[in-house]
Amino acid sequence: MMKKGNGGYKVLDRYFEELEVGMRAVSRGRTITEADIVNFAAFSGDWYPLHTDREFAAGTMFGRRIAHGMLVMSVATGLVPMKPGVVVAFYGMDKVRFTAPTFIGDTLRVEAELIEKQDKGAFGVITVRQEIKNQRNEVCSTAILKAAINKKPQ
Amino acid sequence: MMKKGNGGYKVLDRYFEELEVGMRAVSRGRTITEADIVNFAAFSGDWYPLHTDREFAAGTMFGRRIAHGMLVMSVATGLVPMKPGVVVAFYGMDKVRFTAPTFIGDTLRVEAELIEKQDKGAFGVITVRQEIKNQRNEVCSTAILKAAINKKPQ
Amino acid sequence: MMKKGNGGYKVLDRYFEELEVGMRAVSRGRTITEADIVNFAAFSGDWYPLHTDREFAAGTMFGRRIAHGMLVMSVATGLVPMKPGVVVAFYGMDKVRFTAPTFIGDTLRVEAELIEKQDKGAFGVITVRQEIKNQRNEVCSTAILKAAINKKPQ
Amino acid sequence: MMKKGNGGYKVLDRYFEELEVGMRAVSRGRTITEADIVNFAAFSGDWYPLHTDREFAAGTMFGRRIAHGMLVMSVATGLVPMKPGVVVAFYGMDKVRFTAPTFIGDTLRVEAELIEKQDKGAFGVITVRQEIKNQRNEVCSTAILKAAINKKPQ
Amino acid sequence: MMKKGNGGYKVLDRYFEELEVGMRAVSRGRTITEADIVNFAAFSGDWYPLHTDREFAAGTMFGRRIAHGMLVMSVATGLVPMKPGVVVAFYGMDKVRFTAPTFIGDTLRVEAELIEKQDKGAFGVITVRQEIKNQRNEVCSTAILKAAINKKPQ
Amino acid sequence: MMKKGNGGYKVLDRYFEELEVGMRAVSRGRTITEADIVNFAAFSGDWYPLHTDREFAAGTMFGRRIAHGMLVMSVATGLVPMKPGVVVAFYGMDKVRFTAPTFIGDTLRVEAELIEKQDKGAFGVITVRQEIKNQRNEVCSTAILKAAINKKPQ
Repeated sequence: MMKKGNGGYKVLDRYFEELEVGMRAVSRGRTITEADIVNFAAFSGDWYPLHTDREFAAGTMFGRRIAHGMLVMSVATGLVPMKPGVVVAFYGMDKVRFTAPTFIGDTLRVEAELIEKQDKGAFGVITVRQEIKNQRNEVCSTAILKAAINKKPQ
Repeated sequence: MMKKGNGGYKVLDRYFEELEVGMRAVSRGRTITEADIVNFAAFSGDWYPLHTDREFAAGTMFGRRIAHGMLVMSVATGLVPMKPGVVVAFYGMDKVRFTAPTFIGDTLRVEAELIEKQDKGAFGVITVRQEIKNQRNEVCSTAILKAAINKKPQ
Repeated sequence: MMKKGNGGYKVLDRYFEELEVGMRAVSRGRTITEADIVNFAAFSGDWYPLHTDREFAAGTMFGRRIAHGMLVMSVATGLVPMKPGVVVAFYGMDKVRFTAPTFIGDTLRVEAELIEKQDKGAFGVITVRQEIKNQRNEVCSTAILKAAINKKPQ
Repeated sequence: MMKKGNGGYKVLDRYFEELEVGMRAVSRGRTITEADIVNFAAFSGDWYPLHTDREFAAGTMFGRRIAHGMLVMSVATGLVPMKPGVVVAFYGMDKVRFTAPTFIGDTLRVEAELIEKQDKGAFGVITVRQEIKNQRNEVCSTAILKAAINKKPQ
Repeated sequence: MMKKGNGGYKVLDRYFEELEVGMRAVSRGRTITEADIVNFAAFSGDWYPLHTDREFAAGTMFGRRIAHGMLVMSVATGLVPMKPGVVVAFYGMDKVRFTAPTFIGDTLRVEAELIEKQDKGAFGVITVRQEIKNQRNEVCSTAILKAAINKKPQ
Repeated sequence: MMKKGNGGYKVLDRYFEELEVGMRAVSRGRTITEADIVNFAAFSGDWYPLHTDREFAAGTMFGRRIAHGMLVMSVATGLVPMKPGVVVAFYGMDKVRFTAPTFIGDTLRVEAELIEKQDKGAFGVITVRQEIKNQRNEVCSTAILKAAINKKPQ
């Protein structure tokens, strides 16, 4: 975690003892394409026409198709690489909010900050505040994530 | 919403005025296959080896590959069909917890209960408690979802 | 079947006794994207260049790539949701005709009319006339479909 | 068309003048996997539980999941390669029947016979009887296909 | 191999005895779409931002996203159909070079020349020089491929 | 590059000046599933029956379906993460050999060694020997890769 490179940082890339509250991370970016929306509709089975029907979407307050909220959350998990052996399990999420739409062609990145760590003995639990931003620096989604993290192998 | 059929119910299939707190719904089922895990790893970019490396997963406390938490949440959105024109927007999620692993071959369904409705004038906001269960009736994930719902066209 | 909503109807959503000749249905829409054509070529293995080679397609009477006929038929099956437990089996199709090309960006919907029902004792067989139309209301494909439908559970 | 090789033949690989009524063809085979059924459900949006819910399918007369009829028809189009420039357009299908289920692991091939040719002046129309068979030589689907075929470039 | 049709040729479609050094082949074309780049990034797990981040790519010497080199090589294998029973195994590649970028919308074809054949007794080995060209006739990739080829069944 | 973690290393994760001949890397693993073979056949268009027809493959010297050579090479590119901004371009490959088949269920990892670096002034070129191994430690593929690497931003 928190290793510099390309003007950014990576999160969840260290053992529990090496992580400190306040550490921040920025991911690489990924452009959300029309193909991504089609592929996510297909995978999830969620063909709600706001995402998949150009005519219908034109008549909504967004004026065009937008990405599924869960697409945005799923893409975020892949933008934040996790070192094998470090993460034990993904506990859950709180306060997931969709604060701005993602349109076809927008490029998303994840910014994260470690806001809490709890030592549970054999392992630790970390709490991360995650923001997903687009290329206009709008925050598209905010969430609080919790994961169990291994301690360093002795 | 809440229309009987096939021993089950459907959620989010009615306008705001027609929905009542306490209404319950059960979705159809979907078997989570090895292909689903591969396809979700591919889509999201999350190749964490607990999901995608059989040898690595054999050495974890799960003993074999498990589905991504976000895969389970994404599949759930497709199991609960939404009538076009009814849902305005998906607001967000709270208290998302992953309470049991999903293995290859498990069949998931969504059970939902409307726990709150708020009239916002032009539209309404509903709060739904969602449980994702497998064929052994284990609860794999719980969450609270919020969405904005249209009122009946006059 | 035939339940109103969003200015449209749904087909094949009722038991045999509840269906009547003359009932009509209209599906939601789905925009056919370049990604859909690529994905269908990939799935089916049909890379005929009229669908997948922009230079070749420019030299045909269509002037650009068109969707596969079978893509259009496959998408139609997903636009008409079937209630689990109602449909026993899909028998077949007759008089399938491709009457207008589907271009990238067109939005398709299915319109269907129940034109015959036959009681077979334990179950029934229905015959449906299906039209697939685009956003310009052109009929892209017509077909006659037959399916076996369950009677109401007693 | 009709070129020997690997104990089989290929169809629709010749110009109109070179085709003769009675010519027969056999395609290569393709094993239908669980991934294919998942991918077709995803592409088409048809998640009917007979195809995608192992528990539900176990309670039907088939006893397990079966491939979608339209999956079988789509795969067939890719098994019969068409030479670019030969086929003008796919007209349609008649008498499409699903005569035996396709289970996960079955291997399908297409057998075809040219049963009619009509000279339309600038081009020709051919009628082909298609059978889709599995590795047990059961006929899974029969259909009559019509296509417009180019004449030889002069 | 080397059968005329559509102004082109096909490679690797004959038994070892029927192949001669100097035979040339040209494949059909395939347009590389944005969906192809997304799908290949997903399949391979290679999300390097030159391929998948529009903002990042705009700042490179290419000015926009380009296809992965391995995408181009993979597509080439599908453009050159191999007759079942003819090819025993694909040995390997030498001198694979990426000589020009492939942009979204480019249409690729494969041109190949048989440059060596070696009789190994029970089977033969052929060496093919492969060029992948786009619609501007730029060479995007060159490579030398080797494969083991069956002799004619007696 | 060469950062320890999980008993392994990563390659191509440093600027040119930080790389040294002799540095070695080991990737995470990825299990090659039946879905991967289906998805790669679909993407590439290479449905050669040794990869996709269970009956045909049973009659070959491998006795069952094997993964495409190019699938293995493509997966390898995703196993070796590259830091954005470090890699300028992928030059090419030499001496690519497929030395052992990959069966469904095998788990592949990449081992790499930096064997040469050349300073080109504005950037550098590195040469890497890559081995792809399975869970039985068999070498499935060997290759020599060349890439242009950025120097450290000043």
